[in-house]
Amino acid sequence: MKQIGTLAIVGVGLIGGSLALALKSKNAVRQVVGVGRSQANLDEALALGIIDAIASIEEAAKADVVFVATPVAQMPTIFAAMKPHLGASTIITDGGSTKQDVIAAARGALAEAFPQFVPAHPIAGTEKTGAKAAFATLYEKRKVVLCREGETIPSAADTIAELWRTAGAEIHEMSAVEHDDVFAAVSHLPHLLAFALVDMLSQMPRADQYFNYAASGFRDFTRIAGGSPEMWRDISVANRLALREQLNLYRTCLSAFDSWLANPAPEGVAAIEASYVRASAARNAWQRHIEHGEPLPKFGAGHDG
Amino acid sequence: MKQIGTLAIVGVGLIGGSLALALKSKNAVRQVVGVGRSQANLDEALALGIIDAIASIEEAAKADVVFVATPVAQMPTIFAAMKPHLGASTIITDGGSTKQDVIAAARGALAEAFPQFVPAHPIAGTEKTGAKAAFATLYEKRKVVLCREGETIPSAADTIAELWRTAGAEIHEMSAVEHDDVFAAVSHLPHLLAFALVDMLSQMPRADQYFNYAASGFRDFTRIAGGSPEMWRDISVANRLALREQLNLYRTCLSAFDSWLANPAPEGVAAIEASYVRASAARNAWQRHIEHGEPLPKFGAGHDG
Repeated sequence: MKQIGTLAIVGVGLIGGSLALALKSKNAVRQVVGVGRSQANLDEALALGIIDAIASIEEAAKADVVFVATPVAQMPTIFAAMKPHLGASTIITDGGSTKQDVIAAARGALAEAFPQFVPAHPIAGTEKTGAKAAFATLYEKRKVVLCREGETIPSAADTIAELWRTAGAEIHEMSAVEHDDVFAAVSHLPHLLAFALVDMLSQMPRADQYFNYAASGFRDFTRIAGGSPEMWRDISVANRLALREQLNLYRTCLSAFDSWLANPAPEGVAAIEASYVRASAARNAWQRHIEHGEPLPKFGAGHDG
Repeated sequence: MKQIGTLAIVGVGLIGGSLALALKSKNAVRQVVGVGRSQANLDEALALGIIDAIASIEEAAKADVVFVATPVAQMPTIFAAMKPHLGASTIITDGGSTKQDVIAAARGALAEAFPQFVPAHPIAGTEKTGAKAAFATLYEKRKVVLCREGETIPSAADTIAELWRTAGAEIHEMSAVEHDDVFAAVSHLPHLLAFALVDMLSQMPRADQYFNYAASGFRDFTRIAGGSPEMWRDISVANRLALREQLNLYRTCLSAFDSWLANPAPEGVAAIEASYVRASAARNAWQRHIEHGEPLPKFGAGHDG
């Protein structure tokens, strides 16, 4: 790709810092400046060579590309602070895990400059946070979803797509509504469920005994409950419409399980087994897909309700 | 330990086969015989050197130690089939993930021989099944819970404890009621939740897209949904009282999340954050405990309701 002059990273954590490192390793950016709330984290990013200088939000707004990689709840304020200083050819993009709310905030704050904004979501992360968690290969072979709007400047979207490809990612495009539904289902709901379970168990009278006997199944099931509470609070609230839809479908499933267990006549036992059989088949097919590239089966064929 | 003459494994899968391999590797058993429903699996166990001979359930009942390592729903029939042929000094033990139901079944079927039964639960496993999944080190540093009853012959319990220690495990003792509550909380409920989520998503109209964008958080959260549907159906039904108790506490938590998301006034957002903060702190403390041996914090101090 054509080298970017100045890349500004707003929020130099795992997501923002790793993009900076990836582009630096490919010599795809001349300089990287970092903006953030925590001086200690910025100093660390500087010491680690993730950024070349610390900048104010006003300075960042004049960069060639601005990557807003903060928790989504901070983005409206950041867009508003950048607006009066925004370069005429600056491209803004984001790394938020929700898209409809970020797009609405950008449209409101950036007004006539909104076409310079390219909404995006890199599907990558670990439960670690902060500049020290960043690494150059985080995005290799990961998906990045672009949700361009009608107004988005095509060449701006192309630049951002090329930048992510340079970092090793594959680009997928979908609407913001689709995006938010998909990630409510496969990411936001699982996080809520894991946080809720660990919180519940940690507050029970026999919590010490529970955690003492928890084993590898529990470890993997709850790994995502070790993530950033602030980030996941923001995502849960930002995507609450799609999340509540998935949550309430799930609550209906759990209510069915409760009825089956309350009266485990042959029909109840058969219903539990049928659900476990479908789940196990789907999970194992998906595992073969992600591990060995086997095609996914046609899911939900009989259930297009 | 004193060498066991004949060990009979009823159900030569991951759990049964791995104990046989562990004891053989320590020369702690003279011969191992295997009993099972699947001739192909028994042939494989024989070929892999897990067992030395295939036996009938009647023959197995005369062994020095019988390890019943089948899904728990099969145990009542197995105990009943062994009873008329049971050796006077044969010790029976099991590897079931639920204890109250197995103990009730053993008490009913074995009658006056019930003191020869030592209820146990090795806390180990993978999502793989069958003799070919077995390996000698499965139980190293794992916990085995013994739930002896008032009638259990002390020397029989000691023999079983010693046998598990020889396989590398640590022995813990608790009552069957305690056991079933603990494992409903940290194992049976997480499995039900993972199965239910994968089944739900696999049946939705946009399931293909969901599974296409599911990433590493989803992978770990749902790993346990790849387990044996039959085994987990049996466990769910066998431990349904304790499981429903945990499930309904959890449903109450999810209902609170739904209310907070429906009306994300500052209080709702604060409640979501508070739950995520507690969960994340507990999960990360537990991770440090299992990884680095750090002591667990005192959980649930303010909530002994």
